[in-house]
Amino acid sequence: MMVLSHTFEEFAGMVKAFHGSVAPGIMIGGSMVDLAYRCLPEGGLYDVICETQKCLPDAAQLLTPCSIGNGWLRIMDTGRFSLAFYDKYTGEGIRVFIDPAKLDAWPEIRGWFLKLTPKKDQDSARLMKEIEEAGSDICSVERIQVSLDLVEKKKGGPITLCPSCGEPYPSGRGALCPACKGGMLPYGSGPRKGGRVDVC
Amino acid sequence: MMVLSHTFEEFAGMVKAFHGSVAPGIMIGGSMVDLAYRCLPEGGLYDVICETQKCLPDAAQLLTPCSIGNGWLRIMDTGRFSLAFYDKYTGEGIRVFIDPAKLDAWPEIRGWFLKLTPKKDQDSARLMKEIEEAGSDICSVERIQVSLDLVEKKKGGPITLCPSCGEPYPSGRGALCPACKGGMLPYGSGPRKGGRVDVC
Repeated sequence: MMVLSHTFEEFAGMVKAFHGSVAPGIMIGGSMVDLAYRCLPEGGLYDVICETQKCLPDAAQLLTPCSIGNGWLRIMDTGRFSLAFYDKYTGEGIRVFIDPAKLDAWPEIRGWFLKLTPKKDQDSARLMKEIEEAGSDICSVERIQVSLDLVEKKKGGPITLCPSCGEPYPSGRGALCPACKGGMLPYGSGPRKGGRVDVC
Repeated sequence: MMVLSHTFEEFAGMVKAFHGSVAPGIMIGGSMVDLAYRCLPEGGLYDVICETQKCLPDAAQLLTPCSIGNGWLRIMDTGRFSLAFYDKYTGEGIRVFIDPAKLDAWPEIRGWFLKLTPKKDQDSARLMKEIEEAGSDICSVERIQVSLDLVEKKKGGPITLCPSCGEPYPSGRGALCPACKGGMLPYGSGPRKGGRVDVC
């Protein structure tokens, strides 16, 4: 089984280096990207929407030009294990998803994916073997039309210094930066007034 | 100037391959990660919070074990150009940010970062040279204490099949999956009833 131009083992090595462990979800993600590329016309410029935060975004980041930081990959967390690829100029695209109707032939994947098999009873080696053998046979593909006006990138507008923390932020976000407005961060970061001291 | 164990040029090559272009923000991000690693005690296990979606998350993904898909990197978009590193067991950490008070010595960076220089007047080569020379001299570091109960990973609970689209999702998200509840996605994906046909 190939994942684009990589063997399954080569892709596992890439995953280990980037993701830290060869997790089942990202390996299945490799087959999903591979399937998408077989379905999409060549030569288009495709953005990706990933419907889960777990594992799957890293398959897209490793195998496509799309990353979180360049904005061509977005996560819209519906909790479904799915990747949507769409032409950035026309919005036409496809959506690849794990199809539960196709899982019956793969009991180890089914037990893991639907959380039917308790962790202690999972057989990792057998699970990985099924993932390699199944490839994209557990997926379905549907056509989608993305409303491009709903995915337009926000322009931040001019940059201003927050009167509270003193840091630069896009002025379109309000009179104080969203961090100083509060409620967004799990840590405080004190106002610059009085001086914050470099800790190293 | 080194970015961890990489020369500036080597890091630029990694950035080009992953991010698609050697963008100024991600190159500055390299220096921010480098600075953080010099400040943090060795041997800890650090999670990362990035306060912007733009460019910076990719520096963290390239240079740390933290990625979006493995959950060790999170984006909390305050619009500030900042990375927070914290010990996942104690919440103790540091926050690295671009300090506008330190930008005066670097006019090309200052003009680009604060959006003072119109795009047509920017000198990319000079900007990149300043970014290499400045390294982390444009950054400050402050100590933070992360409230770990605010960053706990959500358990999704059992997996169930959505009665509308037929796809698996964490049952804790409601009686319908968030996609079928509506408002989350810029594309429709029809109910399974009546049969969705594989398009390839």
